[in-house]
Amino acid sequence: MGRQGILLVFSGPSGVGKGSICRALIKENPTIHLSVSATTRLPRSGEVHGVDYYFLDNNSFKKMIEEDELLEWAEVYGHFYGTPRRFLQEALDRGNDVILEIDIQGALQVKDRFPMAVLIFVVPPSRLALESRLRARGTDTREEIEKRLRCTEREIKMAWRYDYIVINDQLTRTLDTVRAIITAEKARPQRSQCLVRDLLR
Amino acid sequence: MGRQGILLVFSGPSGVGKGSICRALIKENPTIHLSVSATTRLPRSGEVHGVDYYFLDNNSFKKMIEEDELLEWAEVYGHFYGTPRRFLQEALDRGNDVILEIDIQGALQVKDRFPMAVLIFVVPPSRLALESRLRARGTDTREEIEKRLRCTEREIKMAWRYDYIVINDQLTRTLDTVRAIITAEKARPQRSQCLVRDLLR
Repeated sequence: MGRQGILLVFSGPSGVGKGSICRALIKENPTIHLSVSATTRLPRSGEVHGVDYYFLDNNSFKKMIEEDELLEWAEVYGHFYGTPRRFLQEALDRGNDVILEIDIQGALQVKDRFPMAVLIFVVPPSRLALESRLRARGTDTREEIEKRLRCTEREIKMAWRYDYIVINDQLTRTLDTVRAIITAEKARPQRSQCLVRDLLR
Repeated sequence: MGRQGILLVFSGPSGVGKGSICRALIKENPTIHLSVSATTRLPRSGEVHGVDYYFLDNNSFKKMIEEDELLEWAEVYGHFYGTPRRFLQEALDRGNDVILEIDIQGALQVKDRFPMAVLIFVVPPSRLALESRLRARGTDTREEIEKRLRCTEREIKMAWRYDYIVINDQLTRTLDTVRAIITAEKARPQRSQCLVRDLLR
């Protein structure tokens, strides 16, 4: 049928569990691809170049911007982050769904360029739950955690501009909701053009 | 939380199986209500007043129009059909989802008045499948079947204006898709206002 894949864009406060959701989706369905972002921030312990991020220096990142190789990019907490365009476009054209885990600024830029992108905002069941998760993760200093929490309120207000808001309380339930969103989105008229053309033949 | 129910509006060619889908949904989830339409057509064998339709005479129907008691109404194949407003609104306000099985004209009128209504267009897997089902149903004369089939092409072209297009090939798979649509729609930002308000508190 030549159906295009769905571009699923996940955002939400740091520590809300976006990474676990995306990893679980890819694990259960290998036809879903994860878009790897480029960044100028330093790798955290265990992060691998080309898997978690493309870790670039400032000059390489600027070159990608200049050559329009980034679908979107932004500066967050003093570091650059961006989405390489080519991999993503090729996967969608092959009919693979693609997951993109990016911040709100980036997600809204992607929606402008790909109006068919499906934007999912992940929220914690409560503020307290989010704070505990950030502390348990142990990857941020206390100052960074405070900074992230102050940012959360502003971020949650932007959730209105997303297509869906999903509460990440229990991962299994969250995954049920995300799977339902994927199934529902495949039944959108804009994605059923071949089907309707066949019926009218 | 005081969440409003979802208004699910099903349309599609005669014989496509909308009735079976709606009955199955209600059977598996008794909190979903079926909106009973009013009509001036005569009952088919086995149809019950107040269950399948409110069977009204022309004068009673016109009185409902005049008193603005119908959410939408239309004339189809020489008969009047309409959706009584009160029952539907009360059920949605109580948080119950409501199913409405109506024709395209009616569905689009409902969407104008209830922009949050979810419009689902059910299509057959093929033209041939639809023709066989209409004949097997045995409720229409040959002329009526021909008339309905000629109507189908025009109807399917209107499917673009719906929120979802669902192929009714196997009922179990169709129901999976409809359940996914309901789950996804509950995660729409417009339906998560209480949730976000709580998070920002």
